[in-house]
Amino acid sequence: MFNYTMPAEFEPHRRSYMIFPERADVWRDNAAPAQAVFIQIAKLISKFEPITMLVSPKQFQKAASLLPPCVNLIEVPNNDCWIRDSAPTFIIGSDGVLSGIDWKFNAWGGAVDGLYSDWSADDKIAAAICNLEKVERFRTDDFVLEGGSIHTDGEGTLITTEACLLSKGRNPHLSKQEIENRLKSYLHIRKIIWLKNGIYQDETNEHVDNICAFVKAGHVVLAWTDDKNDPQYEMSKSCFEILSQERDARGRKLKITKLLLPSPQFRTPKESQGLQKLSGSVLRKSGERLAASYVNFYPLNGAVLLPFFDDKNDKKALETLSMLYPDREIIPIYSREILLGGGNIHCITNFVPLAPKAASKDDEN
Amino acid sequence: MFNYTMPAEFEPHRRSYMIFPERADVWRDNAAPAQAVFIQIAKLISKFEPITMLVSPKQFQKAASLLPPCVNLIEVPNNDCWIRDSAPTFIIGSDGVLSGIDWKFNAWGGAVDGLYSDWSADDKIAAAICNLEKVERFRTDDFVLEGGSIHTDGEGTLITTEACLLSKGRNPHLSKQEIENRLKSYLHIRKIIWLKNGIYQDETNEHVDNICAFVKAGHVVLAWTDDKNDPQYEMSKSCFEILSQERDARGRKLKITKLLLPSPQFRTPKESQGLQKLSGSVLRKSGERLAASYVNFYPLNGAVLLPFFDDKNDKKALETLSMLYPDREIIPIYSREILLGGGNIHCITNFVPLAPKAASKDDEN
Repeated sequence: MFNYTMPAEFEPHRRSYMIFPERADVWRDNAAPAQAVFIQIAKLISKFEPITMLVSPKQFQKAASLLPPCVNLIEVPNNDCWIRDSAPTFIIGSDGVLSGIDWKFNAWGGAVDGLYSDWSADDKIAAAICNLEKVERFRTDDFVLEGGSIHTDGEGTLITTEACLLSKGRNPHLSKQEIENRLKSYLHIRKIIWLKNGIYQDETNEHVDNICAFVKAGHVVLAWTDDKNDPQYEMSKSCFEILSQERDARGRKLKITKLLLPSPQFRTPKESQGLQKLSGSVLRKSGERLAASYVNFYPLNGAVLLPFFDDKNDKKALETLSMLYPDREIIPIYSREILLGGGNIHCITNFVPLAPKAASKDDEN
Repeated sequence: MFNYTMPAEFEPHRRSYMIFPERADVWRDNAAPAQAVFIQIAKLISKFEPITMLVSPKQFQKAASLLPPCVNLIEVPNNDCWIRDSAPTFIIGSDGVLSGIDWKFNAWGGAVDGLYSDWSADDKIAAAICNLEKVERFRTDDFVLEGGSIHTDGEGTLITTEACLLSKGRNPHLSKQEIENRLKSYLHIRKIIWLKNGIYQDETNEHVDNICAFVKAGHVVLAWTDDKNDPQYEMSKSCFEILSQERDARGRKLKITKLLLPSPQFRTPKESQGLQKLSGSVLRKSGERLAASYVNFYPLNGAVLLPFFDDKNDKKALETLSMLYPDREIIPIYSREILLGGGNIHCITNFVPLAPKAASKDDEN
């Protein structure tokens, strides 16, 4: 029999995936400014690992004319571009063979507080990726999850938030313990660390990937503010306390590096004006606070893509990441256009793990 | 203090390197047929990992016009294209930081039995790659070695051949024990397995990479023939006996998979006629036996490039490699043009390891 592991994102990748943005109610000015940033990111990724961009039939010609041949384009219908959440979560057997968990997707809360009303195409993205990667797919038809709501250390530990996983719009038929059992069983996880909250006003019901990430087994970064008047202060403090007390699957205490948040960011009237209103989707108003965080970085083979906000804390974030990943190139990307859509670099990227040391089939005989 | 490891080739790569072929005394018809195969291989690699092609100033325009933008072209002078042998050998610290060992290179035997008389540009390839990869370089000015003459399991074991490493054209000033000590010290190796021979009439003095390779720690493939009248028979048999008796750095007995060689291959008169004669370089005559072997495959991220010879044993080799690497795409390449130059796919490719799990700098404080 094989053992299975859920590989960590900081481990080697076979390939990255993205989806080309287009929704005019999420991406201002018919998504043109967002597309420019997505293209910049795809080009950067292609320097470090293979990258596939999924594109809707409607946008395919435009994407093909804008993207270089190093970015592999595949026509796949979608409702929006948050591939972190719609892609499968991969596990890897001790034989080196991957499988994909195809979570039921309901646009971050379905009828309760979902962000748009038709997510049928997004719910088929995971199957499309499993087909492209030729891996076996396991569908969880009665369990809703998004990839951005979980992080692993690759050694049997998983971090998540109660705010998201216990939300009414996802799996109200399951208790916390039942959800924990499902995650352990699907992902071959031995220990789950439950944070209470994520980032203030994060419309994903506070995905963990915006507040806390493993940089290696035994070591996390945590989004932090020293401003006690910021509602984020108590949220980050609670995370710190939980992380300080918990132990991982291997019984280790966690090392915690605080990553200072940028100053609070708000949507401007001009940024709001460029959005089209569509029935069934959430309204993005000027003046509302955006869920900006440097923790939404994307580690890939030999590099880390780091969100920049044109903020006084950008430089400090770059220094911290350079210290955490001494052998990777840390690449800052001014990512406000992604932030305006409700996420950041980590939310619009995903990875397929590379089997690091594949055994051969005949070893199992 | 850090621990260092010499990563195995079957582990994740940061990048592959090749050199564009051009010598008219090695590559027939002004290297055009060889260039076509090198281009095919570079394109295939670019689907799986970043690839850089080093090209001489003279060939740069031609290469740039023939290669797609996914292949990163860098102008670097060279004497020939055997980057397996002229590139640095990388070691990796427990902090995830790479260093390159820049071996003295003398064209497989220098004045004694080297294959060409001016190797000064090739001897600078390793430094160029260390610069491109921004890694520290350690030069061994009194120790000659080529990358193709050693293979590791990534766990402290190294395999090599006496025919090559004890040859008169390399390090005649050092005893076998002294050579062993050097390798252990430079590469942080704990156990060296000495085979006697490689492949019959292999002009590299029988590099190990044409006869035996690790497919994972504890498991090797060995080039094999059942024809007792073939001079290769006793050579492979001797290797098998040594490998059967040895233990690796971790004390394990090795699993050995035999990989049946193609039928003997010979240079045809037509293939010989297309070669220019240059003073100082070895003459490649028609009728001479070529050192053909399937073991000269190249494992890269998610794939294996496998030499094909239009031979009855091609299919069997493909089956064996598919069994050995169940999670990789095995890609056969008809590689006779490379074979005519004296090597095969493994000889014309090399890799930079990817730090699989980098520690952070502050963990060492």
